[in-house]
Amino acid sequence: MLDQRKLPAEETELVCTSAAEVAEAIAELAIRGAPAIGVAAAMGLALAAIKGEDLDEAERVLAASRPTAVNLAWALREVKRDSLHPRDLVHNAHRIHADEVARCKQMSKHAAARFPADAVVLTHCNTGALATAGHGTALGAIRTAHALGKVRHVYVDETRPLLQGSRLTAWELTHAGIPHSVIVDGAAATTIAGSGVTNVVVGADRIAANGDTANKVGTYALAVVCDRHDVPFDVIAPTSTVDGEARTGAAIPIEERSSAEVTDRSDAYNPAFDVTPAELISAIVTEVGVHEAPFERPLADAVLTAASLGV
Amino acid sequence: MLDQRKLPAEETELVCTSAAEVAEAIAELAIRGAPAIGVAAAMGLALAAIKGEDLDEAERVLAASRPTAVNLAWALREVKRDSLHPRDLVHNAHRIHADEVARCKQMSKHAAARFPADAVVLTHCNTGALATAGHGTALGAIRTAHALGKVRHVYVDETRPLLQGSRLTAWELTHAGIPHSVIVDGAAATTIAGSGVTNVVVGADRIAANGDTANKVGTYALAVVCDRHDVPFDVIAPTSTVDGEARTGAAIPIEERSSAEVTDRSDAYNPAFDVTPAELISAIVTEVGVHEAPFERPLADAVLTAASLGV
Repeated sequence: MLDQRKLPAEETELVCTSAAEVAEAIAELAIRGAPAIGVAAAMGLALAAIKGEDLDEAERVLAASRPTAVNLAWALREVKRDSLHPRDLVHNAHRIHADEVARCKQMSKHAAARFPADAVVLTHCNTGALATAGHGTALGAIRTAHALGKVRHVYVDETRPLLQGSRLTAWELTHAGIPHSVIVDGAAATTIAGSGVTNVVVGADRIAANGDTANKVGTYALAVVCDRHDVPFDVIAPTSTVDGEARTGAAIPIEERSSAEVTDRSDAYNPAFDVTPAELISAIVTEVGVHEAPFERPLADAVLTAASLGV
Repeated sequence: MLDQRKLPAEETELVCTSAAEVAEAIAELAIRGAPAIGVAAAMGLALAAIKGEDLDEAERVLAASRPTAVNLAWALREVKRDSLHPRDLVHNAHRIHADEVARCKQMSKHAAARFPADAVVLTHCNTGALATAGHGTALGAIRTAHALGKVRHVYVDETRPLLQGSRLTAWELTHAGIPHSVIVDGAAATTIAGSGVTNVVVGADRIAANGDTANKVGTYALAVVCDRHDVPFDVIAPTSTVDGEARTGAAIPIEERSSAEVTDRSDAYNPAFDVTPAELISAIVTEVGVHEAPFERPLADAVLTAASLGV
């Protein structure tokens, strides 16, 4: 995998030769983004099967690598769907990867249709090819809309503490030739208020059954500010992100990461995610379509039923 | 002056020997914080007088060093109040400094009275002794409340791009023995929503006649989130921060700083301040007292009349 910790300064391949190494790459953020870590975990389990490692132990280590993204658990189930034969796991891991990219393109098409002509879009964190093993979710929608000639400008939250916005999203936008400016996270509210932002789009790490959405810390404030300024706030994520077991956002575990990511000088409180209540979300867009607020029946029912029907 | 750019790693004195050097120290943020740059500008003009520099030119250079803080213009008028004789300018510069500290202690007393017992306070940027040439405004209120045994914990926004929160506020809180955690700016909303924050306090770089307040970028989102969660959002600043000429926040010039402060990899949009509308402010606290919202007559009248009466 491309080691995302070293981007944009260096483009280095990280080679993992065991499930434990894949788990470590996920925990240490060499690979990150909910869909991408699902693909990586599936491949990690396939790798364990090929090498004759203890599959239960490999699955346990991979499942524990990050607590918030639900794709991880989903992908670990999905990769074992047919049998525990290494050939089937490898086949399914590749299928999960290909399906993930196809789903991104689908949801991006649905989401881009919601942009006006000449859209000025603000986004948070990295939800691009790097986060999804191809194309992207929220950044995929920006890509697709740009290809349709609909994007005037993109504002990118730098996304502290790990700067996925200024390191990764800006790098992807530069490669794609899409005009953009990086802003500090604290400047997002005044940019939404005063710079003609028409759409805010974000990804999701986990979506509860009622539509409450856990995403990179900083997302919740964007939703509150969009509400005040009547700017559409869309969550763009695969159905594999929807957790029908979590009734509301309160049931989503929020990973707290090391103080050292924030400062080496003081104690820090460093939650990696926050929860945006469904009532602040204009639409949740998945590969099966656009679910506009208010979500009249549990969002999970609508989304997961459509997904299971292969819509 | 203490060179704040090097804190907390180094405590270095910066010696300025001309008004131009003081102006440069202000522009380059060796000294920052609206009250402190007012004091520095007054001392810079006194220095120019002692050295026989052209006072009009010195005043022009000092006034142009930062565009948003109104204390700068106020202090440059105030220091010349009696005459242009060097002795009077030096005397007045020292008086402005002493008065600024006395005012901080007054407003801190008023503001701390608004904290409950066991307050959990969130603040942004640095509004402490460093920003005010003594005690502090919003951080002064926290100091005073802590001395009264009313502060359980302080959350400090790191305050990108220049990290005045994690570099300066955390340093002051550590020296004062006040328990605190640094958070990334993006974590403020979820901290307010979920960590029992009872009060959010900030300073101000300029307050318009109607109460709209320009302060360090990131302040506006805090006010919007406090409004949603019914957490009091107080602005604590000297009356010298109130600009009776600016009818609303729209008349306050917002300094846009270099892209390089945010990232050296991409273009950035880097406004140093944002404007919080008066309707989101619970109270504006100055040395003359507490002005609670809604501000029934133009705030500037109330504040400036009281200040001129020497209340």
